[in-house]
Amino acid sequence: MALLVSPLAPASFPKLPAIKGVRIASHAAGIRYQGRSDVFLAELAPSTTVGGVFTKSLTAGAPVEYCKAHLKRGHARVLVVNSGNSNTFTGRKGTSVVAATVKAAAKAFGCEPHEVFVSSTGVIGELPPIDKVLAAIPDAQAKLSEDAWMEAAEAIMTTDTFPKIATRTAKIDGVAVRLNGICKGSGMIAPDMATMLAYVFTDALLSTPVVQALLAMGVNKSLNCVTIDGDTSTSDTALMFATGQSSHRLVSSTSDPRLRDFAEKLDDLLIDLSKQLAKDGEGASKFVEIKLKGATNDKAARNIAMSIANSPLVKTAIAGEDANWGRIVMAVGKAGERANRDKLSIAIGGVVITKNGEPVENYDETPVLTHMKGREILIEVDVGIALGKATVWTCDLTHGYIDINGSYRT
Amino acid sequence: MALLVSPLAPASFPKLPAIKGVRIASHAAGIRYQGRSDVFLAELAPSTTVGGVFTKSLTAGAPVEYCKAHLKRGHARVLVVNSGNSNTFTGRKGTSVVAATVKAAAKAFGCEPHEVFVSSTGVIGELPPIDKVLAAIPDAQAKLSEDAWMEAAEAIMTTDTFPKIATRTAKIDGVAVRLNGICKGSGMIAPDMATMLAYVFTDALLSTPVVQALLAMGVNKSLNCVTIDGDTSTSDTALMFATGQSSHRLVSSTSDPRLRDFAEKLDDLLIDLSKQLAKDGEGASKFVEIKLKGATNDKAARNIAMSIANSPLVKTAIAGEDANWGRIVMAVGKAGERANRDKLSIAIGGVVITKNGEPVENYDETPVLTHMKGREILIEVDVGIALGKATVWTCDLTHGYIDINGSYRT
Repeated sequence: MALLVSPLAPASFPKLPAIKGVRIASHAAGIRYQGRSDVFLAELAPSTTVGGVFTKSLTAGAPVEYCKAHLKRGHARVLVVNSGNSNTFTGRKGTSVVAATVKAAAKAFGCEPHEVFVSSTGVIGELPPIDKVLAAIPDAQAKLSEDAWMEAAEAIMTTDTFPKIATRTAKIDGVAVRLNGICKGSGMIAPDMATMLAYVFTDALLSTPVVQALLAMGVNKSLNCVTIDGDTSTSDTALMFATGQSSHRLVSSTSDPRLRDFAEKLDDLLIDLSKQLAKDGEGASKFVEIKLKGATNDKAARNIAMSIANSPLVKTAIAGEDANWGRIVMAVGKAGERANRDKLSIAIGGVVITKNGEPVENYDETPVLTHMKGREILIEVDVGIALGKATVWTCDLTHGYIDINGSYRT
Repeated sequence: MALLVSPLAPASFPKLPAIKGVRIASHAAGIRYQGRSDVFLAELAPSTTVGGVFTKSLTAGAPVEYCKAHLKRGHARVLVVNSGNSNTFTGRKGTSVVAATVKAAAKAFGCEPHEVFVSSTGVIGELPPIDKVLAAIPDAQAKLSEDAWMEAAEAIMTTDTFPKIATRTAKIDGVAVRLNGICKGSGMIAPDMATMLAYVFTDALLSTPVVQALLAMGVNKSLNCVTIDGDTSTSDTALMFATGQSSHRLVSSTSDPRLRDFAEKLDDLLIDLSKQLAKDGEGASKFVEIKLKGATNDKAARNIAMSIANSPLVKTAIAGEDANWGRIVMAVGKAGERANRDKLSIAIGGVVITKNGEPVENYDETPVLTHMKGREILIEVDVGIALGKATVWTCDLTHGYIDINGSYRT
């Protein structure tokens, strides 16, 4: 089934710069897809530190388990990602495929197995063709370059309809450091053919605990705030690699004030990637931003915002361009977090619809309906309890979603 | 928008018997719909005890709040239900509509206000036309009879495509007692035009605590195990009325062995109604039963089963007749309950597909695909931890759901 490019895809893509200490390549290994690349390989300088955040799924795949185990050692030399087959729910045989991949990559790059990180995304329950995976390593290695970022983002796509890339520059000690990010979606989503994978590369010189902490904090405000259908993949992975090739002095504490600009730019880059994920949600015709405030705390705010973002009724109403705020009330109510019904206020497209628990007097739906016809929908909710707030991103639920997911495997 | 009758609707409906101490009527009050009844009134004998279970939504409507308050007194004389307007999120004005309805019904039937129970289902955020609601009480009162059960089930319908009724006979002390149930859906669902309402009437002589306990236990295994889209209405209500007009001796303890047959028949009746709800889920083309075992405890089992039942990916795969067990693995993993990935086994239509964490050898998909083409889909999952089990019911997610919910209000 050919997927049309999302109507929310960016009009143009940025050109990602080289990052000192990172060489990348993509390769068509024919794991499942024909006529496109399906392997992304990255070679990292020996000084590279790494942090990671993974799916909370209790049926996570073997590649995730390997990454988690390797992360404890804190150093990375090689990243091998394949699309087309997630190597999940493949039992002991699947684990041995990962072990063989790790071993082959470590040998090819002259490093330790624990310095190799692997991700797989694609169908569940089918064993990856080990010969093709192993053959891809030297093939891709021969093609390593500093600037094939767009091709890398394309190699990891599954149901994505456009590659997702972003870049930022931050200053540490007055020295400009680079951050490049690539990811694929289309959300927390479709484990049949999709999964969220995100990789950030920087030349900053950061200790392993700093890389880990920055990534975890950033993901919490970005990738963890995107939802397409509320489903959680068995392979979701975010990894950040810091090659340490920049000339600034080492940052080894997250409370170091020199980190401020870097942390801000990292968050910004991750939010950029997150919005791209929502804009490429399966069947998406509208991008939705939900800003929630007034909750008990930030976590409660995110839970309520996610309840709205995951509600099939809210999402179908948006697809139908219906300013159906009653469904937002419902989604707030079912979130299980404290909300004051009699103080609840809801605005769509900046127009306040309800205030203090009832529709505003002489509510005029006209400007809201105009907003609903646009491509980007803004929903603001105040639940009237305290100061907790959160922003999450999603897309509408359309016939396209049913088309894609009701007939994918066959 | 005219809704076609669900392809899963029953071929015929049972004839519900009279219940001593219950007189019922339906009436076309013109609250929102034209050309159909929209008010259901029940008069209950002075001896009637009552139990209730309500939505957990924190934005519940005024009728739910009234029922909860009245329930504490434990006796009922009148039930007034309207469809077309849920009187939810209507602020203080909405509360005064309920108060006026209760007052008028208490006056008309010569009882106390706390003996009046009310439910409303329909659009959120619009004030019900109080004149029409009040006028409906004497009009319906004039039509009270013992056998208008089918008409009552029709009067409370919103997006339902068929009325939902069930009846059972149980024995207490060797005396036959009746149980009649009516409900409407289509699930936990569409608060715009739907909500789950269920009413059970019996002539059994039961103390208020017994009625409450039996209903709560029964609902936990039935109505709380149905899901259409995971959304929770602001008005969900289940009430059981026991008129005490049967000739057996009072049952005032839930541990009384004389209750055994009654409790069994009540559970059975509630499960019957629950399956009808799933079969009338918005856009449903297939009924799905999910039997989960091997969880830490029954609650964990229900959570995992619900995670499968609410997964848009599982539901769209079923709509597409795709035996996509990988999505079931995903849904088990995201439930957040303990599951042993390496012991997980999944069967569809009685055919074991995975065992001990991987696909069974020489798995033949043919009989499973035949099963997927049927109207009733059975999914059995063993998560391999302990003895917790649960059964839940749902339907598939089709283009019909998007049609209904993407364009309902307009």
